Amino acid sequence: MSKPYKGFEPAWFHGEVPERSYRSIFKWGDPNFIKPPKETLYTLMKDMFGVTDEDFKEYSENLGLDEVSFDLPITLAEPQLAAFRAIVGEAFVRTDNYSRLSVAYGKTMYDILRLRNKIVENVPSAVLYPDTKEQIEQIVSFCAKEKIPIYIYGGGSSVTRGVECVKGGISLDLRLRFNKVVNFNEVDQLITVQAGIGGPSLEQALNDAVARFGARRAYTLGHFPQSFEYSSVGGWVVTHGSGQNSTYYGCIQDMVLGQEYATPMGNIKTDQYPRKATGPDLDRILMGSEGTFGVLTHVTLKVSRHMPETTKRFSFMFKDWETGQAAAREIMQSEAGYPSVFRLSDPEETTFMLRLYGVDESPLRHLFHARGFRENEMCLFLGFTNGEKRFSRNCARHAAKVARRYGGMSLTGMVTRGWEKGRFSDPYMRDTIHDFGVVMDTMECSVNWSNLSKVHAEVRAYCKSRPNTVCLTHMSHVYPQGANLYWIFITRISDPEEFREYHAGILDAIQRSGATMSHHHGIGKMFGPWLEGSLGRNEFAVLKALKNHFDPDNIMNPGGTLGLDLEDKYKRFSL
Amino acid sequence: MSKPYKGFEPAWFHGEVPERSYRSIFKWGDPNFIKPPKETLYTLMKDMFGVTDEDFKEYSENLGLDEVSFDLPITLAEPQLAAFRAIVGEAFVRTDNYSRLSVAYGKTMYDILRLRNKIVENVPSAVLYPDTKEQIEQIVSFCAKEKIPIYIYGGGSSVTRGVECVKGGISLDLRLRFNKVVNFNEVDQLITVQAGIGGPSLEQALNDAVARFGARRAYTLGHFPQSFEYSSVGGWVVTHGSGQNSTYYGCIQDMVLGQEYATPMGNIKTDQYPRKATGPDLDRILMGSEGTFGVLTHVTLKVSRHMPETTKRFSFMFKDWETGQAAAREIMQSEAGYPSVFRLSDPEETTFMLRLYGVDESPLRHLFHARGFRENEMCLFLGFTNGEKRFSRNCARHAAKVARRYGGMSLTGMVTRGWEKGRFSDPYMRDTIHDFGVVMDTMECSVNWSNLSKVHAEVRAYCKSRPNTVCLTHMSHVYPQGANLYWIFITRISDPEEFREYHAGILDAIQRSGATMSHHHGIGKMFGPWLEGSLGRNEFAVLKALKNHFDPDNIMNPGGTLGLDLEDKYKRFSL
Repeated sequence: MSKPYKGFEPAWFHGEVPERSYRSIFKWGDPNFIKPPKETLYTLMKDMFGVTDEDFKEYSENLGLDEVSFDLPITLAEPQLAAFRAIVGEAFVRTDNYSRLSVAYGKTMYDILRLRNKIVENVPSAVLYPDTKEQIEQIVSFCAKEKIPIYIYGGGSSVTRGVECVKGGISLDLRLRFNKVVNFNEVDQLITVQAGIGGPSLEQALNDAVARFGARRAYTLGHFPQSFEYSSVGGWVVTHGSGQNSTYYGCIQDMVLGQEYATPMGNIKTDQYPRKATGPDLDRILMGSEGTFGVLTHVTLKVSRHMPETTKRFSFMFKDWETGQAAAREIMQSEAGYPSVFRLSDPEETTFMLRLYGVDESPLRHLFHARGFRENEMCLFLGFTNGEKRFSRNCARHAAKVARRYGGMSLTGMVTRGWEKGRFSDPYMRDTIHDFGVVMDTMECSVNWSNLSKVHAEVRAYCKSRPNTVCLTHMSHVYPQGANLYWIFITRISDPEEFREYHAGILDAIQRSGATMSHHHGIGKMFGPWLEGSLGRNEFAVLKALKNHFDPDNIMNPGGTLGLDLEDKYKRFSL
Repeated sequence: MSKPYKGFEPAWFHGEVPERSYRSIFKWGDPNFIKPPKETLYTLMKDMFGVTDEDFKEYSENLGLDEVSFDLPITLAEPQLAAFRAIVGEAFVRTDNYSRLSVAYGKTMYDILRLRNKIVENVPSAVLYPDTKEQIEQIVSFCAKEKIPIYIYGGGSSVTRGVECVKGGISLDLRLRFNKVVNFNEVDQLITVQAGIGGPSLEQALNDAVARFGARRAYTLGHFPQSFEYSSVGGWVVTHGSGQNSTYYGCIQDMVLGQEYATPMGNIKTDQYPRKATGPDLDRILMGSEGTFGVLTHVTLKVSRHMPETTKRFSFMFKDWETGQAAAREIMQSEAGYPSVFRLSDPEETTFMLRLYGVDESPLRHLFHARGFRENEMCLFLGFTNGEKRFSRNCARHAAKVARRYGGMSLTGMVTRGWEKGRFSDPYMRDTIHDFGVVMDTMECSVNWSNLSKVHAEVRAYCKSRPNTVCLTHMSHVYPQGANLYWIFITRISDPEEFREYHAGILDAIQRSGATMSHHHGIGKMFGPWLEGSLGRNEFAVLKALKNHFDPDNIMNPGGTLGLDLEDKYKRFSL
């Protein structure tokens, strides 16, 4: 529970979310959990936006409490529905409107704005809830014969319109039943799961490996995206996801050692050898295909030892963005092991975080002053290390040594703990605040060190070109060759199409500045128009050739995913 | 210079190698460097084989000193040759027999036996020596139009018949001119090179980065295959090569961050972002294609800091293979950083190495006895660590700690130094010994921990089923999920076809035992018949679809490479 406000507190929505309502679909996470902003954050928002308590006296957005209602035809014939019922069981084929809409949208603000405005465009004719790999294989095979579009819904946290059923057909909702551990192999440190398993369920199984699998010790996957609680392994794999601890544990690409897909051209199963030189790597050909080649069914993942007791937290303040960047690069290039969480905030995000975590009310603020660190210039660096005890300690010590060499001032592990506390619950605030018209969304990109300052400056300039817009930027998922830049923008937009235009402008700015438009969010249908421009014509043609091989009738996630089935006129060549 | 023998010394060939001779083609490396075995090794060979000095009194194989001579037609028309001359220059299109044969074979014993026996089957009509990427692009484009087969020759160390010009056409010999550094970027720690650059040339440039590029410090690629001195970057990339230090630095897949290819469907250039979620990874789609999609022209590689002073060597003796394996797995799974070189020999190789490095004549042998370690049971583990000083030290200490926990007895760094000394020159012995009919070749595979003992036992059993055959096995290139098993077999075979049959039997044994048939040698034409059986029919069809996209007329390395253009009847489905 948060502390009561001293000043005016907006009537943050605390009501029950009706079961078949729009809100129950667009709201993040647990339907019964609400996270209103603390008073410090509320005050901060007002300062940063130039808005007042007046703007928070009445909801400016539809709360979405009405029952879902729309009139879109079911285009499947009864024999087709009967065939699906025969495969997955009577109870697991649903055609009611609520089920149809519940799998049609992801979590970009474009989706949420549409749902709040009851704009229902693209829904499947039926939702199927398969239980086994074999059922999915039968479904794909049947759909290939009947040319029925197939969409896949894992955790539903896509911010790229990845799950949207643009061409109707069916959606496979994997959450309900296709969510189990298939096999655990302690000797090889591998776990095989059904693609619909969610982050917490998998992580819990690994943490409990002793009791659950009779293992000798506890394990972790080490994959903790901010969407952790409501995203699925399948979604991570097909979109090339990364967790917040990726600098040590790697991105999902580094964790996958085997996959099975049901595709229109047949089933595919990759082997699980630790490394091989047997032609182009099938796992990498399939990963990142975002449902356009086939349905990912089983995934085999490498696991690591679960040793939370060896975690070493650190946080430092640097005098400015350039210095922080130089220190970050040195830590990543000096070969002393990689920290696990590694996050450098730019000046605007630093200001925000200091207030969010109450640092600017602590004695530390005097120290900043004494050190000559200036607000809106200084940059916060935080993180922690994992691994074997001495490895982890040595890695943290080395990071601290480099930070000090670059004039960094240690803030102890306090700020890191503050960050950790909110890492999975912060997304809940988004809906609460949005009731008053404030939208919050994110974009990110991957860039080399030598171009990082340019990309940061140019993309930020575009974001800030919109009046009263907050743009918080941090670097995370860091490599010897560069880093991910992550933007959180907060502004007021009510019209979904206005949001989409702003979003497109950011993508244009990312491409023009010399970065690639996704480090770990994927492409989906929302970024699809940019992909060919980003990769190049001959390069993009390779993906199209693969698509054509696996899915010649374009039934897999059709309607713009990865831009594969877009006509040129819908593509955006920003460069 | 080696010490004089006390007993009988065979007349190891020390003569000059005539310039246009067969020997100048099949001989490993520097034409003027000879490495005869030391007396200890010679004695050991006799013991292990059950042969005597008598067998080493006369050369039993053709020394290959005759000038190359064969009569195979040039099938290119004069206007085609003229077109090539216009692209690369008059002097850089050669059609003489010596040039043609010099790029037609690699270094599997099958190649060497054929050359010693003057069996010349497959040569190109012409050899081209391009200078620039643009020239290669023009050549490929011209050949695509004229349907002329293209082969590529990098360092020529292929052990899979990867370079063999089965369908004639042309071969691009990249050694002569396409071997330069294109760009060095210290901020991003990246180097871009022409694909024909050789290991030492690239490594020297990086070590000399301060003088050469005005860099702040020295760098290394960290890629040291045994073929280092005579292999090319392009060869490493297209075959998925690994160096002996891969456990720390990674395999070539981990080092490549950008590639350019000239393919019949056009030129391809991948981007160089540190990581991305923009659809299936083009770099991985192209890597491992072994010249069947196009010609790799430029490669951008990640580089690391060159810190030889931080190297920490270790070596241990374990009581047996199972104990050594368990310790190796624990080191790789305990997350204290990975050693760089990591090599565990099985009992037969251990016996061999102890004699090779003179350990069995040192006081250590008494210690083995005192510890109850038995010959033909005990296993030698050696390696070293790299990286930042404390990281490297901690990693070596941890390896030692684990080794001791598993009853390992430290041999200090002595044995490791012995191994390092011979790591690049040992291949020279192969030709010297072969003059007396003893063939020595290698096979390797990738396997998970849980199946490693089975694969070791079964493949070894096949190798040893041949009378008087030495089979030395070690584990190297190690991962948390498994390892590479590497077999060196030494036997007497004179007939190339008999060699091929034995080689095929080993491949069958690898597949049947549950390993994949190449960790880093690639597939080429020699392993091609097994690939579909190894991957599966639908899985293999994906590679064929890519092939068909890039090279619909099959002009790129045709004739069985990766098995892509083999009819089913030539394929081997061993499982």
